[in-house]
Amino acid sequence: MAEQSALSDSEVEVWRAFYSMRRTLDRALDLQLQRDSQVSASEYEILLAINLAPGRQLRVKDIAGTIGWEKSRVSHLIARMEKRDLLTRTECETDARGSWIGLTADGRRAVLGATRGHVAAIRRYFFDVLGDDEAERLKGMAARVVEAIGCAADEDVPARDALAETASAEKPE
Amino acid sequence: MAEQSALSDSEVEVWRAFYSMRRTLDRALDLQLQRDSQVSASEYEILLAINLAPGRQLRVKDIAGTIGWEKSRVSHLIARMEKRDLLTRTECETDARGSWIGLTADGRRAVLGATRGHVAAIRRYFFDVLGDDEAERLKGMAARVVEAIGCAADEDVPARDALAETASAEKPE
Repeated sequence: MAEQSALSDSEVEVWRAFYSMRRTLDRALDLQLQRDSQVSASEYEILLAINLAPGRQLRVKDIAGTIGWEKSRVSHLIARMEKRDLLTRTECETDARGSWIGLTADGRRAVLGATRGHVAAIRRYFFDVLGDDEAERLKGMAARVVEAIGCAADEDVPARDALAETASAEKPE
Repeated sequence: MAEQSALSDSEVEVWRAFYSMRRTLDRALDLQLQRDSQVSASEYEILLAINLAPGRQLRVKDIAGTIGWEKSRVSHLIARMEKRDLLTRTECETDARGSWIGLTADGRRAVLGATRGHVAAIRRYFFDVLGDDEAERLKGMAARVVEAIGCAADEDVPARDALAETASAEKPE
């Protein structure tokens, strides 16, 4: 049982390649945005989430949920973007759940201006490289991973026990 | 030309699925580490990078380079991990390039203890779901994306001009 959970050499290669793709793609998309539109990929994600929201405003908590980051990291970045006059904050007197974050005119111009170049970079670095068939195949793989993790979360307690058992099978040096 | 750079509906679906896989996988691996080993995925990455380094120590700058984060984010997390007695800092008198970060005994126990459960989670959520053939195919896709971005970086100036041209082809509203 102990040996079964170790990754084989070829699995390590796959995992490293997958991580290298993610990191290289993230960095290339970030560089393109910073260079051509003067926003980072993180800032762009926040601008886009707000621009796509109903009424073009979101609470900090919802932005964190939408882009999948910790709330403290999002708060910090939003404060910097307010100083750069990309975002506005509106306090809501009748609601204690915090303020609304919206786009300034500059923020809206930034997200609209950045989108075209960003999409061109996604096409260039990803879709042109993979081609239609491989892209469809990747979509299938992604859907299966997401579904499997959802199922694992549903049966969380047994999964936890199984992992704890495997972990205790070998003591650290 | 302007229309050509927009993503089709099916491309948007692929891109969303790819992002959803990344996010779901990151979250599941982070949860498993926090639950079973009391370290976050970010902390685990730092512990692992140091544990794999020659002499088991690294500078903050090198840790940032290895795991692909901004130096400020790495510095912040390292300070928290020093407080938790997972990392040590050694100033080097003959070298102005900053201090060395190493593992405490607790830090070394943490990374060794966490690895077994983490690897089991990677197997469960990724390799068991994809199977050998799909995993190999994903490795091939990843290698092509990484290579294409490397080539694009080499011819950076024309790439920049082409993107700038596409971006200016449509004004924001």
